[in-house]
Amino acid sequence: MNVNNYINGKFVTSKASDFFDVHDPSTGEVIAKTPLSTSSELDNAVHAAKTAFKVWKSTPAVDRVQPLYRLKHLLERDSDKISEILVKEHGKTFAEAKGDLLRGIQMCEVACGIPTLQMGKFSNNVARGIDSYSMRRPMGVFAGINPFNFPAMVPFWFWPFAVATGNTFVMKPSERVPLTQEYIFQLIDECGFPPGVINLVNGGKEVVEGIVNHPDIVGVSFVGSTEVAKIVYDKARGNRKRVQALGGAKNFLVMTENASVEKSVRAMVDSCYGCAGERCLAGSVLVGVGNSHEALKNEVIKNAKEVIVGNGMESNTSMGPVISQSALERINSDIEIALKEGAEIVYDGRKSVPQNGGFYLGPVVLDNVKPGTLMATKEIFGPVIGLMKVDHLSQAVELINSSDYANTCSIFSNDGMEAQQFIDSVHPSMVGVNLGVPAPMAFFSFGGSKESFFGDVKVHGQSSIEFFTEEHTVMQRWFNLDEKQDLNPHWSKD
Amino acid sequence: MNVNNYINGKFVTSKASDFFDVHDPSTGEVIAKTPLSTSSELDNAVHAAKTAFKVWKSTPAVDRVQPLYRLKHLLERDSDKISEILVKEHGKTFAEAKGDLLRGIQMCEVACGIPTLQMGKFSNNVARGIDSYSMRRPMGVFAGINPFNFPAMVPFWFWPFAVATGNTFVMKPSERVPLTQEYIFQLIDECGFPPGVINLVNGGKEVVEGIVNHPDIVGVSFVGSTEVAKIVYDKARGNRKRVQALGGAKNFLVMTENASVEKSVRAMVDSCYGCAGERCLAGSVLVGVGNSHEALKNEVIKNAKEVIVGNGMESNTSMGPVISQSALERINSDIEIALKEGAEIVYDGRKSVPQNGGFYLGPVVLDNVKPGTLMATKEIFGPVIGLMKVDHLSQAVELINSSDYANTCSIFSNDGMEAQQFIDSVHPSMVGVNLGVPAPMAFFSFGGSKESFFGDVKVHGQSSIEFFTEEHTVMQRWFNLDEKQDLNPHWSKD
Amino acid sequence: MNVNNYINGKFVTSKASDFFDVHDPSTGEVIAKTPLSTSSELDNAVHAAKTAFKVWKSTPAVDRVQPLYRLKHLLERDSDKISEILVKEHGKTFAEAKGDLLRGIQMCEVACGIPTLQMGKFSNNVARGIDSYSMRRPMGVFAGINPFNFPAMVPFWFWPFAVATGNTFVMKPSERVPLTQEYIFQLIDECGFPPGVINLVNGGKEVVEGIVNHPDIVGVSFVGSTEVAKIVYDKARGNRKRVQALGGAKNFLVMTENASVEKSVRAMVDSCYGCAGERCLAGSVLVGVGNSHEALKNEVIKNAKEVIVGNGMESNTSMGPVISQSALERINSDIEIALKEGAEIVYDGRKSVPQNGGFYLGPVVLDNVKPGTLMATKEIFGPVIGLMKVDHLSQAVELINSSDYANTCSIFSNDGMEAQQFIDSVHPSMVGVNLGVPAPMAFFSFGGSKESFFGDVKVHGQSSIEFFTEEHTVMQRWFNLDEKQDLNPHWSKD
Amino acid sequence: MNVNNYINGKFVTSKASDFFDVHDPSTGEVIAKTPLSTSSELDNAVHAAKTAFKVWKSTPAVDRVQPLYRLKHLLERDSDKISEILVKEHGKTFAEAKGDLLRGIQMCEVACGIPTLQMGKFSNNVARGIDSYSMRRPMGVFAGINPFNFPAMVPFWFWPFAVATGNTFVMKPSERVPLTQEYIFQLIDECGFPPGVINLVNGGKEVVEGIVNHPDIVGVSFVGSTEVAKIVYDKARGNRKRVQALGGAKNFLVMTENASVEKSVRAMVDSCYGCAGERCLAGSVLVGVGNSHEALKNEVIKNAKEVIVGNGMESNTSMGPVISQSALERINSDIEIALKEGAEIVYDGRKSVPQNGGFYLGPVVLDNVKPGTLMATKEIFGPVIGLMKVDHLSQAVELINSSDYANTCSIFSNDGMEAQQFIDSVHPSMVGVNLGVPAPMAFFSFGGSKESFFGDVKVHGQSSIEFFTEEHTVMQRWFNLDEKQDLNPHWSKD
Repeated sequence: MNVNNYINGKFVTSKASDFFDVHDPSTGEVIAKTPLSTSSELDNAVHAAKTAFKVWKSTPAVDRVQPLYRLKHLLERDSDKISEILVKEHGKTFAEAKGDLLRGIQMCEVACGIPTLQMGKFSNNVARGIDSYSMRRPMGVFAGINPFNFPAMVPFWFWPFAVATGNTFVMKPSERVPLTQEYIFQLIDECGFPPGVINLVNGGKEVVEGIVNHPDIVGVSFVGSTEVAKIVYDKARGNRKRVQALGGAKNFLVMTENASVEKSVRAMVDSCYGCAGERCLAGSVLVGVGNSHEALKNEVIKNAKEVIVGNGMESNTSMGPVISQSALERINSDIEIALKEGAEIVYDGRKSVPQNGGFYLGPVVLDNVKPGTLMATKEIFGPVIGLMKVDHLSQAVELINSSDYANTCSIFSNDGMEAQQFIDSVHPSMVGVNLGVPAPMAFFSFGGSKESFFGDVKVHGQSSIEFFTEEHTVMQRWFNLDEKQDLNPHWSKD
Repeated sequence: MNVNNYINGKFVTSKASDFFDVHDPSTGEVIAKTPLSTSSELDNAVHAAKTAFKVWKSTPAVDRVQPLYRLKHLLERDSDKISEILVKEHGKTFAEAKGDLLRGIQMCEVACGIPTLQMGKFSNNVARGIDSYSMRRPMGVFAGINPFNFPAMVPFWFWPFAVATGNTFVMKPSERVPLTQEYIFQLIDECGFPPGVINLVNGGKEVVEGIVNHPDIVGVSFVGSTEVAKIVYDKARGNRKRVQALGGAKNFLVMTENASVEKSVRAMVDSCYGCAGERCLAGSVLVGVGNSHEALKNEVIKNAKEVIVGNGMESNTSMGPVISQSALERINSDIEIALKEGAEIVYDGRKSVPQNGGFYLGPVVLDNVKPGTLMATKEIFGPVIGLMKVDHLSQAVELINSSDYANTCSIFSNDGMEAQQFIDSVHPSMVGVNLGVPAPMAFFSFGGSKESFFGDVKVHGQSSIEFFTEEHTVMQRWFNLDEKQDLNPHWSKD
Repeated sequence: MNVNNYINGKFVTSKASDFFDVHDPSTGEVIAKTPLSTSSELDNAVHAAKTAFKVWKSTPAVDRVQPLYRLKHLLERDSDKISEILVKEHGKTFAEAKGDLLRGIQMCEVACGIPTLQMGKFSNNVARGIDSYSMRRPMGVFAGINPFNFPAMVPFWFWPFAVATGNTFVMKPSERVPLTQEYIFQLIDECGFPPGVINLVNGGKEVVEGIVNHPDIVGVSFVGSTEVAKIVYDKARGNRKRVQALGGAKNFLVMTENASVEKSVRAMVDSCYGCAGERCLAGSVLVGVGNSHEALKNEVIKNAKEVIVGNGMESNTSMGPVISQSALERINSDIEIALKEGAEIVYDGRKSVPQNGGFYLGPVVLDNVKPGTLMATKEIFGPVIGLMKVDHLSQAVELINSSDYANTCSIFSNDGMEAQQFIDSVHPSMVGVNLGVPAPMAFFSFGGSKESFFGDVKVHGQSSIEFFTEEHTVMQRWFNLDEKQDLNPHWSKD
Repeated sequence: MNVNNYINGKFVTSKASDFFDVHDPSTGEVIAKTPLSTSSELDNAVHAAKTAFKVWKSTPAVDRVQPLYRLKHLLERDSDKISEILVKEHGKTFAEAKGDLLRGIQMCEVACGIPTLQMGKFSNNVARGIDSYSMRRPMGVFAGINPFNFPAMVPFWFWPFAVATGNTFVMKPSERVPLTQEYIFQLIDECGFPPGVINLVNGGKEVVEGIVNHPDIVGVSFVGSTEVAKIVYDKARGNRKRVQALGGAKNFLVMTENASVEKSVRAMVDSCYGCAGERCLAGSVLVGVGNSHEALKNEVIKNAKEVIVGNGMESNTSMGPVISQSALERINSDIEIALKEGAEIVYDGRKSVPQNGGFYLGPVVLDNVKPGTLMATKEIFGPVIGLMKVDHLSQAVELINSSDYANTCSIFSNDGMEAQQFIDSVHPSMVGVNLGVPAPMAFFSFGGSKESFFGDVKVHGQSSIEFFTEEHTVMQRWFNLDEKQDLNPHWSKD
């Protein structure tokens, strides 16, 4: 029942003395225990990775990606099984779990393209007889620290790109959802990486601190709360590592009078309640511009009423539980504060949920959310929709730009000018047009701005190559040992 | 025993009245019959492809590549089986057959990267309020006409890129080696393409003529002799199709006094005798610069003596038969002419071959080959090495550049200056340094110059995207229906 | 008064016996004579270019672009002077002439970026110890054959890219407008190209035929009528040269009910009457979808009435004359046919033009244009607007796609869905959204489809590098002369 | 005599109370005074830049680069004048000063290509009906802190790329060499940037601290000593700015037995003594492998004897003074330590220098330099060559990789294998083959590793675009307001 680590090509039992209880959020039962591995276990993993790097970095790119092709095949083969485990430990619906995994597989697909993506440049004769070229070289051992909300996908944002470019990797899943990755590592174990190239270390704070301080780790990718993201970023940067740290969000979805109401609201509500609102791209505040607010409110309530809360494995469930009892309590408390700050509850689905000890929270809709209040500024990370009204699109933009976060936002409108101006004006660097969750495809790059993202280089897609490699440049000429043999005498003039 | 076509997602028996005998070159026995399909059968295939194009072109790129991932998996699973068939119909050794297939699989791998490779460009605000972007769109039905020498690989140079970019395809294998592709199409049939996306039409001249003249085929990829390449190029171009037509070659490998003799000669002899010399990148004339000639000759003879000619399935065979009795006779006749023109036979392995009716030709080494003679100018396409001596590297370059062909050439030398000047001076556009067969990897582009290549855009790698798509450019601005709503008033000034 | 050629770095007087009269279209007077140079004069230019190529191709890219920087500076310095000459020989307004030149300068700017744009790719260790890289090499002498309608811009579409990539060039301007280029070549003469790199040969049919048949010219860029484009394409292709041949067009601008009428129609009318309609991207037929037709018609007539026809140098002139008396007659005759075929003339500005012998044609608006008639299918190349009405956007798309031409088309609408579907559905490969003349910027590529463009590779931008160079690929490894010195022993295993 | 600042488009006199004396190093005379501007003056500049950013960021890229084209022209026009000023304040030779400026101009050239380089990506139909595209947006106010050794070039590494991509900039030259930039800013003032886009603030530590702490500065580029680079990097990173900080170096040039001795040594000595050794790419230790050491030593001494030390404006001078009296003393002291640590002085040119108060240091050659000693580990930044001998190339690599620095190194050899293995094995990320100063061209990227470079993204070339912009990604679809109008009904299925 204790989750294993995977170090140097072998599953190993942690020697941890402390464990974290993994719950099935749909029942509240403890289903496994995550070892809070010690820093010496992390050391073992880093050591294995550092050793493996010596040969892996000189392995041709076409060979480095072969295990990823195999992994894609195995993940697809076991997709239902993995998704079931994911539902069990996380609570989201089976369809959402399948999507979570699919997104992860798509990362492997893009990383398979490394032989092309990692190419450098070549220029002959940049000056008389001198050729110059560049290479993007791997750097060493990278590490990834992952959140609970996408147990399958998020780890794949990093390690496939890191190892495909020739680095080796140490991965720490969220201690709340270690089982999905434990299963996936059984497939990784089959797919042909040399020992040490990719390692799994379960744990908590001690492992995180170990990673940001470890002298043999050259870079860290982190996804979690802004609070921890800042700490990880500052400490790892202080140690002169590369870092990309993704934090929280407060995402506004804006509907103008030129929108297609039904389709727009369906997309918006899916964004807010999908994965029980536990997504960093989840809609949180829906803003109606001008006269559209009324229609927005009515349609949102109508959609909210149709939400069926329950066990994610049941086929008619449209929303699962939140991750934990404490999350449940935090969200309920946030709702209380919101009401005190003047918001009005226009739909409350909290009573129509299973009463079996699961961490269920029914969908909630709050109207009259005011700028500056908790509901307008804080990340809720639960199935709570806030509604706001503004007179003019420019006010919606101001609202968005006044946030400390800048992960994503969307406009719902059929008017091209509104969309273009919105895109041009807002701070978030992932923008949607008539889309509730504008997550960039694996071959584009992911990452917000301001307090949603700390780092220079975004995640996945072609940015990954920049993050996980260093550019090397060569300038080269040749002298002639035998003047008589000179085919290009003009080169010798200098 | 008759080979089937594959049209619109189904294997169909050809209604051909004429057939081509497929021989096992290692015994001379007839092992199958290739239908010489009629133009109406080609029509059916083109019609299926044209119909399939309507939906396929609008299928997202990430979906279009999924069957290619599956195909890679299936090809690897059945690699030994396919290679055995390939040996049976072509004669090359099992190891060579595996390599032939592997190269094909690598094409699928690169084509899987189409979601990245096919990306267009986007520039916002190219002028006040105007965004501009480009797309590379598929064009319709493409066709591929393939040679006998790489039954597995060559077809993969084209169709995976064509269909991954959204086109549909009609493929004609060489009538001499249809069985490898017949088997591969059984895997294609499993891997999930919609009917009509990829079609197989066996045949001969009538199918070739049908392809170059068919009004619904927008482009043709051809590999074969220069003679036919010219006809295909000129006719298809005359019909304003896109064409890339790869013809013959005469490849010179040059060794200087600065070479590592043993390793160099091993690579050179492998180049000349590998696949019984039936490769468009096969070395044909080995040129010794200055004093290196003597060592070159001795080492070549030594290596030639070690060649074991036999059935490709036998584990100690290092060279199989040539493709046909007529090829055998043609090569023997070429040797006769060479001798008459002054060449001297310094090793003749023609007697030490199996006498079982197979098309075996033992390795031959000719010295004193003179410029302008058959052996110095004509493609032999068999296991015959010509040796030449020049005083100076510049003479080797002149020799190379005097050829009508310009597919590949190599220099063997450890001197950087010699290599750089050689690369800079020679006409062939695929150049090797200390490599006997410098075939570019799948993620680079393949294709020679002069009479070895007719077309503007090379084969596989990123060039494929250019060949199989057309660039579309959009310029876009939006007018404001409501001046009060203008977020970026400076855009309206124009 | 006879225009000079510029060959091998010197202005030379043509030995032509035949001359073409250059008229000032705003008065009808003959202002110069274009020599119809002989094929031996072309030979001289090609010879100079071929000779210059030997050194120019090995000149570093950073040096090759320096003359283009200087030329940009000189063109800007003399912009007014050049534009005045351009108005004199072509007739367009001074503002249009400045724009014509500006577009040409922008081509020089992009060509200055060749050191980056021409870079090849480099991959180290593609297989054990093997590095591979690509170069885009210049090919030799290219030629450009230019039309009368953009005396300054069109020649710059080609030669700056050709010479910046290391080729040399022979340029033939339109015999109708040789003076702009004669002046520009005085600046080229100052800007530092070695003799022979860029040459000017004035002439007519004989020079064109000389170019397409010349054995030392490796590629041809042509802009003119579709009729001649086909001939040039077919002949030059038959000679296995690279060709890009741009022909005529029939451009439809579509306005839906979701458009901003005033701004849209202003842009549409500018498109149709700008440069007196003598642009390959000029709007020709304006299509009103559903109820928008009536507003479209009224607004078009209103705009047409405001057009002031006159000498292009006069500041209040908004439209100049057409190029020649014969063009004038051809267009008038086309209008007659249109009327016979059922079109209705709703505005006729032909009487309000200067009566001084200039080739003036007042703006004309025809309504009730029917599919299949001359006005709906033929390129008019004059200031004539045809109006059509369709019920549904899909009918507008059908209309566009039924044309033999596919250069450009635009939609005027604020609805994002209409725009997206239009872009996705139409054949022309240059599409505008709320833009009358969606000419791609110099850093994107230009070129239509179907009978508007013959060739594989589009014009200017990054496509230019593909057109004017050939890809060369090197694969390189090194043998070790001294085993003891081996730093990477694993490379030696193969 | 006091140097001016340039803020918001105007030259302004600093209100500084403290000044730094600028010396002519060839005489020791004070020639100007650099104001140590106050943080409120920095504030003014940042404020101007921040204000200018609002409009500049929305200025089309083609317009943003026009002033850079003009600046290139003006810099070339005044090249001699600027170089003379540069010699006066810095001491290097006139030819070196011209080269310093030329490198700066080449940065402007590459930055002129921003319309192409800054392009984002576009993919249509990434999922049913969804288009996705990316933009690289400017971020705000950047700052540059520059060293004394390249008064013209280094500032151009940063600001042209920053402003061309749409940011605004505050530039601080070295207080020791402010005059070159003061002159250049007179040209910048002419070339057409809007006020505030590029600003000049002279000063010292207070300005540096102001920059790294200023809340309105989003990123900092620094070049200087490793000691300060670390402080700047850590502080600016702590403030979550982007940083690229280039520090010191210790560069090894290695000659093997396969080198062309005369040419190699000439290049090596130029590398060591050029700019009086005050280059971050200057050779410092010359390593002879095996038997090559003796020839290396003799040839180095021969070359050192030919060095003529003197005023940089005199035509026969081949080496100027060092930057200051304290630098002179530091270097002499380093030589003393080296001798104490066992090095042997084999050539001492220190007596043959002008005795006029200038900071002249004659060339010095030290043999028998031992690993671990000052001469083998510390950056000297003066005309002192250390010689070392190793038995094997692998020992040279170990030596290089044992350094804390990793800026550049070179191998001198004609053997391709030695070069390839050297490149593959060494830590420095700028490597030369037979080149003494392998500074990447402006269109490649510059920057070392380890303690020579702190940051994720290298300098100039395409890396610049990454450093000075943030990637934004849009996902876009449209709903249909009117089902009857749907042209692509399959898009609506989702």
